[in-house]
Amino acid sequence: MRTHYCGELNRDHIDQEVILCGWAHRRRDHGGVIFIDLRDNKGLAQIVIDPDTKEAFSTAESIRNEYVLKVTCKVRLRPEGTVNKNLPTGEVEMLASTVEILNASLTPPFMLDDDTITESIRLEHRFIDLRRDQMQKNMKLRYDISKNIRQYLDHESFIEIETPILTRSTPEGARDYLVPSRVHHGEFFALPQSPQLFKQILMVSGFDRYFQIAKCFRDEDLRADRQPEFTQIDIEASFVDEEDIMSIAENMTREMFKKVMDQSLPQSFPRMTYQEAMHRFGSDKPDLRVTLELIELTEEMKDVDFKVFSSAANMDNGRVAALRIPNGAELSRSEIDAYTEFVKIYGAKGLAYIKINDKNLLNEEGLQSPIVKNIHVDALKAIIEKTSAENGDLVFFGADKRTVVNEALGALREKIGHDKKHLTNEPWAPVWIVDFPMFDFDEEGNRWNALHHPFTSPKDGHEGLLETDPGNCLSKAYDMVINGWEVGGGSIRIHQQTVQSKVFKALNISDEEAREKFGFLLDALQYGAPPHGGLAFGLDRLATLLAGADSIRDVIAFPKTQKAQCLMTQAPNMVDEKQLRELHIKVRPTNAERKND
Amino acid sequence: MRTHYCGELNRDHIDQEVILCGWAHRRRDHGGVIFIDLRDNKGLAQIVIDPDTKEAFSTAESIRNEYVLKVTCKVRLRPEGTVNKNLPTGEVEMLASTVEILNASLTPPFMLDDDTITESIRLEHRFIDLRRDQMQKNMKLRYDISKNIRQYLDHESFIEIETPILTRSTPEGARDYLVPSRVHHGEFFALPQSPQLFKQILMVSGFDRYFQIAKCFRDEDLRADRQPEFTQIDIEASFVDEEDIMSIAENMTREMFKKVMDQSLPQSFPRMTYQEAMHRFGSDKPDLRVTLELIELTEEMKDVDFKVFSSAANMDNGRVAALRIPNGAELSRSEIDAYTEFVKIYGAKGLAYIKINDKNLLNEEGLQSPIVKNIHVDALKAIIEKTSAENGDLVFFGADKRTVVNEALGALREKIGHDKKHLTNEPWAPVWIVDFPMFDFDEEGNRWNALHHPFTSPKDGHEGLLETDPGNCLSKAYDMVINGWEVGGGSIRIHQQTVQSKVFKALNISDEEAREKFGFLLDALQYGAPPHGGLAFGLDRLATLLAGADSIRDVIAFPKTQKAQCLMTQAPNMVDEKQLRELHIKVRPTNAERKND
Repeated sequence: MRTHYCGELNRDHIDQEVILCGWAHRRRDHGGVIFIDLRDNKGLAQIVIDPDTKEAFSTAESIRNEYVLKVTCKVRLRPEGTVNKNLPTGEVEMLASTVEILNASLTPPFMLDDDTITESIRLEHRFIDLRRDQMQKNMKLRYDISKNIRQYLDHESFIEIETPILTRSTPEGARDYLVPSRVHHGEFFALPQSPQLFKQILMVSGFDRYFQIAKCFRDEDLRADRQPEFTQIDIEASFVDEEDIMSIAENMTREMFKKVMDQSLPQSFPRMTYQEAMHRFGSDKPDLRVTLELIELTEEMKDVDFKVFSSAANMDNGRVAALRIPNGAELSRSEIDAYTEFVKIYGAKGLAYIKINDKNLLNEEGLQSPIVKNIHVDALKAIIEKTSAENGDLVFFGADKRTVVNEALGALREKIGHDKKHLTNEPWAPVWIVDFPMFDFDEEGNRWNALHHPFTSPKDGHEGLLETDPGNCLSKAYDMVINGWEVGGGSIRIHQQTVQSKVFKALNISDEEAREKFGFLLDALQYGAPPHGGLAFGLDRLATLLAGADSIRDVIAFPKTQKAQCLMTQAPNMVDEKQLRELHIKVRPTNAERKND
Repeated sequence: MRTHYCGELNRDHIDQEVILCGWAHRRRDHGGVIFIDLRDNKGLAQIVIDPDTKEAFSTAESIRNEYVLKVTCKVRLRPEGTVNKNLPTGEVEMLASTVEILNASLTPPFMLDDDTITESIRLEHRFIDLRRDQMQKNMKLRYDISKNIRQYLDHESFIEIETPILTRSTPEGARDYLVPSRVHHGEFFALPQSPQLFKQILMVSGFDRYFQIAKCFRDEDLRADRQPEFTQIDIEASFVDEEDIMSIAENMTREMFKKVMDQSLPQSFPRMTYQEAMHRFGSDKPDLRVTLELIELTEEMKDVDFKVFSSAANMDNGRVAALRIPNGAELSRSEIDAYTEFVKIYGAKGLAYIKINDKNLLNEEGLQSPIVKNIHVDALKAIIEKTSAENGDLVFFGADKRTVVNEALGALREKIGHDKKHLTNEPWAPVWIVDFPMFDFDEEGNRWNALHHPFTSPKDGHEGLLETDPGNCLSKAYDMVINGWEVGGGSIRIHQQTVQSKVFKALNISDEEAREKFGFLLDALQYGAPPHGGLAFGLDRLATLLAGADSIRDVIAFPKTQKAQCLMTQAPNMVDEKQLRELHIKVRPTNAERKND
């Protein structure tokens, strides 16, 4: 139907007769001549329709934006002064001999180059939105990422094996999407939260090196970087330890950045323990480009009069920490107020701070803050020394339960770091977080929860702690973090049924419950399971990171909103009563309907 | 953890110290020495444990089948007379210095080389079953197929774009799997039966060349070659006609067969119209390796006394056809009875036949059959002439509604063809079936149905027939058939909203219903939809065909049974009442429960 793509024409094609197909991106009438920027998958070409070619001209007069055209034309140099250096095809233009309208278009709901359109309008008319140059690039980038990862894994002898979408609920913390069975009255499939159990089964089956770019599903309330369905690059290997998996994942990531973005990641990613990350950055996914750090002050604040500090410092699981902002004395009152509101999102009750006017004056004059009078001199000295604060700086404080301090100051560190450019020069700062605890304590439930998932192996020598001191039991888990995004995570798994049983016991999962929920895995572990481990990357996040996009919705062709709806197809929707009857289910009355009864 | 794979050791490794990991495939004690065939992903290696290496020997004594081992050993030539030429590693054996048991195994429920195990036992213990050599090969073959197809499509500038799994019901004939929404009371997502509408939307969005290896879902009662979830190689392109798509698909298939199987397909696949295929083979997916053909006798049987023939011949939509079996006179009474039962599966009421004793004697002596006396001489002559029957042949007949004759004789043709080796020499017989009708008539519903789907474009010049004569309106659809399997199919789509409306009208779909069901596609068609088309291959079927497997379940790692259950995970299963409440649904009482009320 065509001989060339619009976007690939240049000087080399001069005097050639070409046939192009595409969309009327823009039409201009100038000096009695019609100019159409014809757009296809590869770019734009300027078509010139001269009034001498009567039929073509009269057709062209009826063309509006987004009409679909087929144009026969001859390539020629643009007249001097009209060359467009911003366009790859900007040296040439095509003189049309015939113009055929393949399809008309209504006036689009928005212009493709209008960046002010709300996301809901974009999602509703996604078929228009996806025509935008940025969205075309994002989809190509996403494909490039998955393609390069596939190539790497293939080269490393991994094979892709598909695992089921209609499966059994695997309890990994999140809520399952359920699918009623028509054949089995009252029974349900669940959509997988990850292929975790299947990939372990594949190792037991001897597949040695497996991968899958797999759809996963979690029915949770959505945050900015979450979707009900998301895509995971899932990797598992046998007869490996942590170093093997981390090395594979690191090489894969490095090669992908090089091939897709032509960017170099460090030859070896730094490692940091979970404990150090929480201590220094309040987060297990620190953005290491941000140069600010949390400074421990818990010991020093135990005996100060300022109750907010001393009570946090004396609390079980309490923490007092400082965040020094170089030149932070310049922050305005309203900026400080905004940061105070910001930390409240993370549960902090307030945001104490000291402006350093003169670090040698350990009083309210040198250290400008209402809290200074309730902090004794030794403690003030400790603040100055430990934070290395200089005159003109500002020091923020967090004092609360350790989890609250870490979340609030950790988030504040990254926010201010980006707001005020306290950043290193590196474009990419990858880091491995290792030595995660096996468990964290769920105070509400008064029980231990698995920090990763219950199939994670304890560190060598830590098996005994499963029973005696679960809180200090570390795991063979690792997360890859880049620029503050957890892009991948995994672990060496438990391959021995005895260890698996101990972990279930520590998690207060009874034998019956374990058998009911994942009996097939427990069976499999008894029939010759090899040592194995792996990890999973979030493709959506990787693509968002590499695209520099604001939202993962910008790297997904047809995403859901934060209310878990597709605005284009209007899914979910009501269905026929007949369908529900076949599935042996009915919809419960709403609260409103119940009231009217 | 290891230095080599078991299966890759040979003469080149002699005298090398290697570390191997794998499973104890077999243990033999012979002359005071223990032999273990150690198995990994790449094959088997024979480990020799000598009583002189005391520790290793004592460990080895406790080893049972499927134990997981790590063995340090030295490669040496096998003693003369013990070389195993059937094994790639059969020239060497490994003398163990240390043997470590990484994991024990219970006695497996079946031996890996036992081919007599029922499928349900295999599926229940899939983690053992997948260790079998054939299953390992099948999974690798499947991966090879998808890998090669990806490479081909990438090379042809197609990009993979993921479309949603949680979407809106697209009515393509089959029943949807539904997923209740937690956020939107009483609303449901549907799992996609195919990405059809999304891929069309992607064309409207200007992606030009899309593919996806996509999971699709149909909640139908299962036949041998169907699964509730299946994998589709989905392809769509813009500004193309049938020839473009067929050429891409043909080249892709040819290259894949060459690279994966090292087998050559014909340089150009033959084409056959739907009408010819039904006429000659009674099927739109004929196995062209079978040399038998249906012979039309409808006209000739209109005035015979034998009522079964004459009434079928005079029926609207009736057909009388013959199938000549060379040397068929040798068929035994019980074979003929079995074929008679076979055609009844397809709705035939019986299976008339004539044994040709002497084709020149047009009576019951020459033509042995109870029906001959009720068929006049001219008609008998026509049978002999049109079928080209020779002495010693047998001719079967079908006489009924055309659909019944085609289905029954079409199936019989392939069955006898394979049973009695009436086959060409070609290993692969691909053919394109083209010129499908747009519609077939649903007698029960008294309406026209789409033969493919309602987005299929009519042939050029046939648009008018949509209103005047739908039964004779042909479409731009095409199916790729190999050895009697429909491996792929597709069409050029409708890109103009006016044509789409006419098709809905022919299908008796009201404007409201169309808008309700796929309003977003109708919208998209109005905003500059390019001409486009594509096709979809069934990956499961392709893999089954290439693997020579009996069932698609043998090329799927974790398939469902024909009752749509996973025997390993026991999905579907009952779920907590709490989960159902969150999803605003409840299970209806069973009939039994209702009775007890």
